[in-house]
Amino acid sequence: MPYVLISTQIRLETGPTIVGDEHSDRELMNYLGAEKTNILGNNFSEYRVNDPPRVVLDKLETIGYNVISMTGVGQTLVWCLHRALRKP
Amino acid sequence: MPYVLISTQIRLETGPTIVGDEHSDRELMNYLGAEKTNILGNNFSEYRVNDPPRVVLDKLETIGYNVISMTGVGQTLVWCLHRALRKP
Amino acid sequence: MPYVLISTQIRLETGPTIVGDEHSDRELMNYLGAEKTNILGNNFSEYRVNDPPRVVLDKLETIGYNVISMTGVGQTLVWCLHRALRKP
Amino acid sequence: MPYVLISTQIRLETGPTIVGDEHSDRELMNYLGAEKTNILGNNFSEYRVNDPPRVVLDKLETIGYNVISMTGVGQTLVWCLHRALRKP
Amino acid sequence: MPYVLISTQIRLETGPTIVGDEHSDRELMNYLGAEKTNILGNNFSEYRVNDPPRVVLDKLETIGYNVISMTGVGQTLVWCLHRALRKP
Repeated sequence: MPYVLISTQIRLETGPTIVGDEHSDRELMNYLGAEKTNILGNNFSEYRVNDPPRVVLDKLETIGYNVISMTGVGQTLVWCLHRALRKP
Repeated sequence: MPYVLISTQIRLETGPTIVGDEHSDRELMNYLGAEKTNILGNNFSEYRVNDPPRVVLDKLETIGYNVISMTGVGQTLVWCLHRALRKP
Repeated sequence: MPYVLISTQIRLETGPTIVGDEHSDRELMNYLGAEKTNILGNNFSEYRVNDPPRVVLDKLETIGYNVISMTGVGQTLVWCLHRALRKP
Repeated sequence: MPYVLISTQIRLETGPTIVGDEHSDRELMNYLGAEKTNILGNNFSEYRVNDPPRVVLDKLETIGYNVISMTGVGQTLVWCLHRALRKP
Repeated sequence: MPYVLISTQIRLETGPTIVGDEHSDRELMNYLGAEKTNILGNNFSEYRVNDPPRVVLDKLETIGYNVISMTGVGQTLVWCLHRALRKP
């Protein structure tokens, strides 16, 4: 799982932050303290934490993820992170 | 084909993900399991997969593509990837 | 605190610039001369300075932060900065 | 001419792609097969090709240009490319 | 002044390009041929040139500035440039 996408809505100084989709690595989601939720009307699940995105970036940096790019789309702000490690 | 552009619409936790245009490399499209489709009203084809974009990024990373930049335009989120290898 | 997010609204040639959330490092906020404020109707605090964002970027560069990515979302312009140092 | 800006509108899987302004290098415009056009109501010229942007990126990579950043603004998607070579 | 922000509105093939705020380095503004203006209704000044942004990027590259990121916000396109030199 070299790539991680996290996102937050409307304001960047506060959570919640969405940190994963239903195929995301469980171990990583546990590390971040994320809860799996299913928003009414969505046919897919997502993982979210209450931390603001900056705190999530710091936690992910500790285990080797770096921000590659950040963007806004609609009211959502998205970060794309990458970890260089490859498991043999 | 050093550059690949992939995109998804509205939500980033779910597919489909558009992974190619009608000039895209067939071998790469097969590797991703992409299907060529022609949306009603469009005068061009596109390749799409049902995976969410994060899963596509992980698959592309396995064969040497790195994310250079990510952006949002309208309701669409786009990633630009590059592979450094050059075939002689 | 390897990551810092700063943002400004509508125009980039003038402040104020938002430089932190309520979990931000106090020492860093003091260094930037930031004031903690609580906007009416928000359930979270933020730190802001009167400098335009370019001046904040220059100040942060002096203590080791580099811009990784910049983006616009709605009327807000956001910079994501990173500092490579790790404290033991 | 170390920097090149290219852009496309609305959809990224199809052309035309705008590859230059009226000060752009003629030799580079010829290499890309670009045609100089003057859109009705504009007081400036632009160069465009029928290729989708991904094909243009691949052509530019062949002569040494790398993508630095990509962004969306309104309905337009823009790439900023750079070539490190300096002619003496 | 390691960071420079430049921006243009609506179309990227033509100027004017805004290249500085009222705290910007005068020497740099002179080098770019920028004029200080005060738009009616704004309580801050800005520096602008008639060159399209690509020409400004090329001029800035000559004196050591590199593009770090580019983004769109509303109708405005913004580039963030950095110069690695540090004065002792």
